[in-house]
Amino acid sequence: MSQVLPSSIAAELFAGRADAIADAARDLALAGWTPATSSNFSMRIDAEHAAITISGRDKGKLGRDDIMLIDMQGKAVGTDARPSAETELHTQIYRRLPQMNVVLHTHSRTQSVASRLFAKEGVVLLEGWELQKAIAGETTHEAALAIPVFPNTQHMPELVAQVDAWLDSGKPLHAYLINGHGIYTWGRDMAETRRHLEALEFLLGCELDLRRLSA
Amino acid sequence: MSQVLPSSIAAELFAGRADAIADAARDLALAGWTPATSSNFSMRIDAEHAAITISGRDKGKLGRDDIMLIDMQGKAVGTDARPSAETELHTQIYRRLPQMNVVLHTHSRTQSVASRLFAKEGVVLLEGWELQKAIAGETTHEAALAIPVFPNTQHMPELVAQVDAWLDSGKPLHAYLINGHGIYTWGRDMAETRRHLEALEFLLGCELDLRRLSA
Amino acid sequence: MSQVLPSSIAAELFAGRADAIADAARDLALAGWTPATSSNFSMRIDAEHAAITISGRDKGKLGRDDIMLIDMQGKAVGTDARPSAETELHTQIYRRLPQMNVVLHTHSRTQSVASRLFAKEGVVLLEGWELQKAIAGETTHEAALAIPVFPNTQHMPELVAQVDAWLDSGKPLHAYLINGHGIYTWGRDMAETRRHLEALEFLLGCELDLRRLSA
Amino acid sequence: MSQVLPSSIAAELFAGRADAIADAARDLALAGWTPATSSNFSMRIDAEHAAITISGRDKGKLGRDDIMLIDMQGKAVGTDARPSAETELHTQIYRRLPQMNVVLHTHSRTQSVASRLFAKEGVVLLEGWELQKAIAGETTHEAALAIPVFPNTQHMPELVAQVDAWLDSGKPLHAYLINGHGIYTWGRDMAETRRHLEALEFLLGCELDLRRLSA
Repeated sequence: MSQVLPSSIAAELFAGRADAIADAARDLALAGWTPATSSNFSMRIDAEHAAITISGRDKGKLGRDDIMLIDMQGKAVGTDARPSAETELHTQIYRRLPQMNVVLHTHSRTQSVASRLFAKEGVVLLEGWELQKAIAGETTHEAALAIPVFPNTQHMPELVAQVDAWLDSGKPLHAYLINGHGIYTWGRDMAETRRHLEALEFLLGCELDLRRLSA
Repeated sequence: MSQVLPSSIAAELFAGRADAIADAARDLALAGWTPATSSNFSMRIDAEHAAITISGRDKGKLGRDDIMLIDMQGKAVGTDARPSAETELHTQIYRRLPQMNVVLHTHSRTQSVASRLFAKEGVVLLEGWELQKAIAGETTHEAALAIPVFPNTQHMPELVAQVDAWLDSGKPLHAYLINGHGIYTWGRDMAETRRHLEALEFLLGCELDLRRLSA
Repeated sequence: MSQVLPSSIAAELFAGRADAIADAARDLALAGWTPATSSNFSMRIDAEHAAITISGRDKGKLGRDDIMLIDMQGKAVGTDARPSAETELHTQIYRRLPQMNVVLHTHSRTQSVASRLFAKEGVVLLEGWELQKAIAGETTHEAALAIPVFPNTQHMPELVAQVDAWLDSGKPLHAYLINGHGIYTWGRDMAETRRHLEALEFLLGCELDLRRLSA
Repeated sequence: MSQVLPSSIAAELFAGRADAIADAARDLALAGWTPATSSNFSMRIDAEHAAITISGRDKGKLGRDDIMLIDMQGKAVGTDARPSAETELHTQIYRRLPQMNVVLHTHSRTQSVASRLFAKEGVVLLEGWELQKAIAGETTHEAALAIPVFPNTQHMPELVAQVDAWLDSGKPLHAYLINGHGIYTWGRDMAETRRHLEALEFLLGCELDLRRLSA
């Protein structure tokens, strides 16, 4: 399955993004956050296109050939490969948050368990942790950082509508959990996005530990 | 202890299966799922034969010479080596589920603890987790995935009878736990079987975490 | 951003300290104790100067160029780089405890959770653990080792004042936690300081486990 | 500090034992079971001598030069190096159990926490776990495996007396815990002893998990 690029996209640009995605995927797989071929990753190419992981591949062994081009409606461009089932959640971020260029979705045990535990409240409130400052724009541990938990569904448009509703409300959104599933987070570049993901995994883990200890 | 192959089995075929088993064993040992020389692994060779790990070897250091040939009654073929004590549980799967070609049995802390915790109910019901879809044939987090827990015994025919009874009842069976012991799972090829094992370890771990947090 | 050294500091001396800091940082990052570019590390150069990590770098990828020179008031010397926001907490130790030559500040999940859990009492009392003897000057598991927990603040002078007050009281101080944040510890050389950090991480983890189990 | 060997001990024999100890120490340090220079390891050389780790070394970086010769009273032979403070606990095993040739003492978080939790009862009873069979001589999960927990003391003869009393009672002894400290276990060769240690770490961890979950 070879990738044919539109003439407006330089081969080097696509290859660079594909390599960056594959590098991140290997690191995140090594951390155990992508069990059983779950998780998906993307980077914006331009206003109309993004590079995203092909569905079902082992995230610990990704190479350039496991990344494909999509348009902002989530349709494959210049390839017969099938993008991740949750592609629309990636393109939604690129369409609605133009300054964001990377979306990472992982599926760690901490993320999955936290999503189930906080599903009823519909949100995880992170407060009093110095590491909240690792999220771009957060400057103090004294503010509360809200991570919504949306109900899981096999029907993507329902999830898209939930995210749209949160964004439409004007509340800040740095990441969200899907119940029984995993986390989505994003950033302006790969380093910022990985810092966000690493900080959120850490903070969710701390919250679970505190619950266990305060019972 | 050298392995003599029947003329019907090509040396390359056996060597390929042995290498695949040894590769998987090293990865699973590295993950800590095969403590103290426990666990065993096999692959079907043909309708009458399978390759299986020799008893008592350190699973982190397996090579081609640690794999032996057995028939579908679990008897050694062309070697004086002793197969794993639980060989009959492997051949049972190959006899009863002809489309299955790989059986993995591991012994992680999560698997052992879950088996003790759910022994009374006799089953772990996995429900509401996106990762259930990693099991071949499962298409939604909304269905319940049942993993039976059978009582442990040093007498293999009792275990074989328990598995037979479940299969005879016509209920789907993707894996089972043995109380105080570990998990058995299988698949059509090594990649699918490892995906099943990875997903089940993850889901059992999530269930244990949820119990700890909901107490 | 290049580092210009005062004539009183040999280039080899600074380079050696920078390498030692970068080596420690990589090991501690690998252990997962420096999530999301948090944590900072320093070594004394002479009575007036120390080498410290530049703010915001990924601690898993530190090299010599990520270390800068500061004076004992925490001001950059011979560079435009910005030192860690918590630099004053490092120089405070060098000023007040002249025999100490290394300060390590990390941010593990165990450290963060312990700081929140013991914040109300304002101190963690470690007692009955053989590993207390890993702290220089401690000779028995029968003594109690007190690790204060100070309230977090984005205003460094408040933290400095809290540490000063403890030191002024004459009580021994081997390390302290900041609430929702992490740990500071120090020693006469890098090996001793890493031994202190490793022992404290271990002991805090044991205390959290005991709490979970004694509930 | 160089090691001078008695003429009755071949240099190759001592070097082989020293290498085997250093190899094991590096693996166990990597597993995190030897925090902050804790833990010690030995192998019998002959009826009168053993090789043991020199006190206070980083167990993750051991080489042949970090191993020294002692006699069966725990005194250094042919070297000025200082053996581990707990050397008498090693030589006691060699004197009382002549078929044992390796003693490993580690200090994992699980071992330390289990020792505190079961200190009052004075024993951990392991029952119903398949992995009990990893201990030499144990053939079924149905028997109970007793691991005593002795009170900690900085005075070695008291510990020696406690171990002697247990052995004198005629009860089987495969390993023991010291309260707030770690585990001692032994075997006929290094592979058996490491299998014992790995199985006991696993089983203690399972018991702690079960307690957390059954609360």
